[in-house]
Amino acid sequence: MLTQYYTASSLDGFIAAEPEDGLAWLLSRDIDSQGPQSFDEFIGEVGAIVMGASTYAWIQTHHPDEWYYEVPAWVMTHRTFAPHPTADIRFTSAPVPEVHAAMVEAAAGKNVWLAGGGDLVGQFHDHGLLDEVWIQYAPVTLGAGAPLLPRRIEFEQIALDQNRDFACRRLRVKR
Amino acid sequence: MLTQYYTASSLDGFIAAEPEDGLAWLLSRDIDSQGPQSFDEFIGEVGAIVMGASTYAWIQTHHPDEWYYEVPAWVMTHRTFAPHPTADIRFTSAPVPEVHAAMVEAAAGKNVWLAGGGDLVGQFHDHGLLDEVWIQYAPVTLGAGAPLLPRRIEFEQIALDQNRDFACRRLRVKR
Repeated sequence: MLTQYYTASSLDGFIAAEPEDGLAWLLSRDIDSQGPQSFDEFIGEVGAIVMGASTYAWIQTHHPDEWYYEVPAWVMTHRTFAPHPTADIRFTSAPVPEVHAAMVEAAAGKNVWLAGGGDLVGQFHDHGLLDEVWIQYAPVTLGAGAPLLPRRIEFEQIALDQNRDFACRRLRVKR
Repeated sequence: MLTQYYTASSLDGFIAAEPEDGLAWLLSRDIDSQGPQSFDEFIGEVGAIVMGASTYAWIQTHHPDEWYYEVPAWVMTHRTFAPHPTADIRFTSAPVPEVHAAMVEAAAGKNVWLAGGGDLVGQFHDHGLLDEVWIQYAPVTLGAGAPLLPRRIEFEQIALDQNRDFACRRLRVKR
């Protein structure tokens, strides 16, 4: 069981452009969904998902009728969201270690995916609960936006792969 | 003749940590100086160098007796620096296109290296004077520091290479 951060990023370390720009910088790229470090490969091993309130709110705004994940999800938030009509989502403001423990139990041996944003991932790392990051770098600089991972963390590389437009790097947190 | 930005970066797009941290995050890494996208390979094709005042001041503070470059260098600055005892350095506050033209002439067919920082490179790009970036990503996030390239720019990849600790990506500005 690993706790993993899987995310796309610009070359300069932004996972989302300024809000009005949406994800055009990312979704215009080419990737092989069966290729190395693809999302399909990754998500098949995931048993539980967590994201921050801003990430969830973005999905709600831009893709209100879609939820791609079949495994249990947690949204760490102090805001109030309407219950999701179909997905298994728990809204919580519990401490990170408590949420993580519940996720590990639900994942039943599979991995825990920290879907972002960067500060949420940083909070898991603050508690020693981040094992790996998988970053797919698109060939663009954004100059501003939401930060990849606002912490100082040392890594060891597991793999570097080209997947069409993306340079994909999988790294392990050094302990 | 190409105008190129060659730089190391953290995973999250910082080329320098907070000032008090220095470059320990970078200089502790392993790289093969004869390996792919190495500095030795790069610098051999460079005929002129330019950097911003902060980059130059950093070198002056941390390596006052060292200057590694044999080709003419420009420092774009409004500050006053003492003349360098040995190196061929021109301090200038002239407009970017004028400095670039002088560099191209001095480089005599070789490339122009934009040594940084990121905003200086952005200013060259603002004038359509950036052809390529070469980024060597160290396996560390910093969370804060000097930005890689604070502009929105589209690229096409030329090469992706592993060089020991570094994932090295060479990209061409899309036109």
